Amino acid sequence: MSCDLPIGVFDSGVGGLTVAKEIMSRLAGERILYFGDTARVPYGSKSKETITEYSRQIVRFLLSQGVKVIVVACNTASALAVDAVRKEFDVPILDVVNPGAQAAAQITKNGSIGVIGTEATIRSGMYSKLLYSINPDLNIYSKACPLFVPLAEEGWIYDSVTKEVARRYLEEFQGKGVDTIVLGCTHYPLLRNLIRDVVREVLGEGITLVDPAVETAKKLKQLLAGQDLFSGKEQVPEHTFYVSDGAEKFRSLANSILPCNVIETKDVTIKTFE
Amino acid sequence: MSCDLPIGVFDSGVGGLTVAKEIMSRLAGERILYFGDTARVPYGSKSKETITEYSRQIVRFLLSQGVKVIVVACNTASALAVDAVRKEFDVPILDVVNPGAQAAAQITKNGSIGVIGTEATIRSGMYSKLLYSINPDLNIYSKACPLFVPLAEEGWIYDSVTKEVARRYLEEFQGKGVDTIVLGCTHYPLLRNLIRDVVREVLGEGITLVDPAVETAKKLKQLLAGQDLFSGKEQVPEHTFYVSDGAEKFRSLANSILPCNVIETKDVTIKTFE
Repeated sequence: MSCDLPIGVFDSGVGGLTVAKEIMSRLAGERILYFGDTARVPYGSKSKETITEYSRQIVRFLLSQGVKVIVVACNTASALAVDAVRKEFDVPILDVVNPGAQAAAQITKNGSIGVIGTEATIRSGMYSKLLYSINPDLNIYSKACPLFVPLAEEGWIYDSVTKEVARRYLEEFQGKGVDTIVLGCTHYPLLRNLIRDVVREVLGEGITLVDPAVETAKKLKQLLAGQDLFSGKEQVPEHTFYVSDGAEKFRSLANSILPCNVIETKDVTIKTFE
Repeated sequence: MSCDLPIGVFDSGVGGLTVAKEIMSRLAGERILYFGDTARVPYGSKSKETITEYSRQIVRFLLSQGVKVIVVACNTASALAVDAVRKEFDVPILDVVNPGAQAAAQITKNGSIGVIGTEATIRSGMYSKLLYSINPDLNIYSKACPLFVPLAEEGWIYDSVTKEVARRYLEEFQGKGVDTIVLGCTHYPLLRNLIRDVVREVLGEGITLVDPAVETAKKLKQLLAGQDLFSGKEQVPEHTFYVSDGAEKFRSLANSILPCNVIETKDVTIKTFE
């Protein structure tokens, strides 16, 4: 496995860019090859079989381009497809759910953890199952926040409407004594400041927000170190962005999220990677 | 063409059910064969080529089941794909955009029309183009309302947050003198009462809301009459519902929108209809 190969990162759309952003900030010498499945976004409402088939196609595409490791920067694909896909391919595959859950289980002092995510993520119980498997004595409280993604995409990042929506959602944790809340959706770091302030207002001081994007980037750093896969480059490299539809729209969103300048985004006919 | 065949109705998901509902209420003796492309929803963010390919597959599927007419109950597919698809198939195909635009152009007294819709619908300019082609002297003002669909799907149908969002969106029409507003998205009739009240509050009395679902059902009735295609049945028939993914979730949403009891929803592998 060549150290010079890029890190493959994929998501159903733009959400995984928050994961790419954390990787860029922690692993400045690494190239990223990003794929956003914009032709088939969102994954949240689709079945396990469909998501697994899509993930398989994307892994094949990333391998065809050459990558040294793959990060599944999508909560739905992490929960529903990674186990099956990992067995089929000979490349290290990291997901975002495991690092987030492990960090939350380590951080909590009183064992009460809140999880927020899309309706599909919460309904699947992926974080609860994983957290209980790490420590069966934890108390897990979950709340779906389906309006956070469209509010973030509307650009109402720090806004009175978004605050009111956040209040309604986060009030569900009142009286539960949670000291840790997992941002269980890759879009939510975009609303992090607002969520932090509303958590303080509604639930009080001293609650830690866990961002799985940050934890995944740390985990990736460990993995590259352990397998001696660092690129060893010093300068900021050129990243590459592929999407399955709407390259131009993706590029402008990517430029609003990422610290680097996304100059070009290429279209891929992903379904041909069957 | 047999009068006994059902009416094919398709959408990218559940939104088109508001069109199916209007057809059911105006054409009580007609069977509906509905297809929701839930595996590939939403269409709004996808390219013209992709939407046209998807629409073609769905028309092939509907024809394979036998339908006497097809209603494209999706604004995006109506705008981007219908013209191309209509030429390829020998079945009458109705869209939702033309009836909505024609009604608005007839209803307005002062020639100033507001159009609200998803970001894709507004960006495409589909309603403006059509309205200007009907009457170049009209003044058209458009406003994308991307939060209305997720708010409707969250069930916040008559809610203070939804009202505040609607105020912000509809304030864009202040000072424009619009006397007619087109609900240019198949989800919006679900918020019709709230939109009506906020229009009154923000823009004043005497503004007419045009619902393309209602206008499409009227147009369909004319078409069936003109081509002598009425089923002639008196009793309420059994409708059939197909989706490309997540049949169970669709069924429960369909039951909350439709006046009939949706007992079964079937899965179709739509991409095989290439």
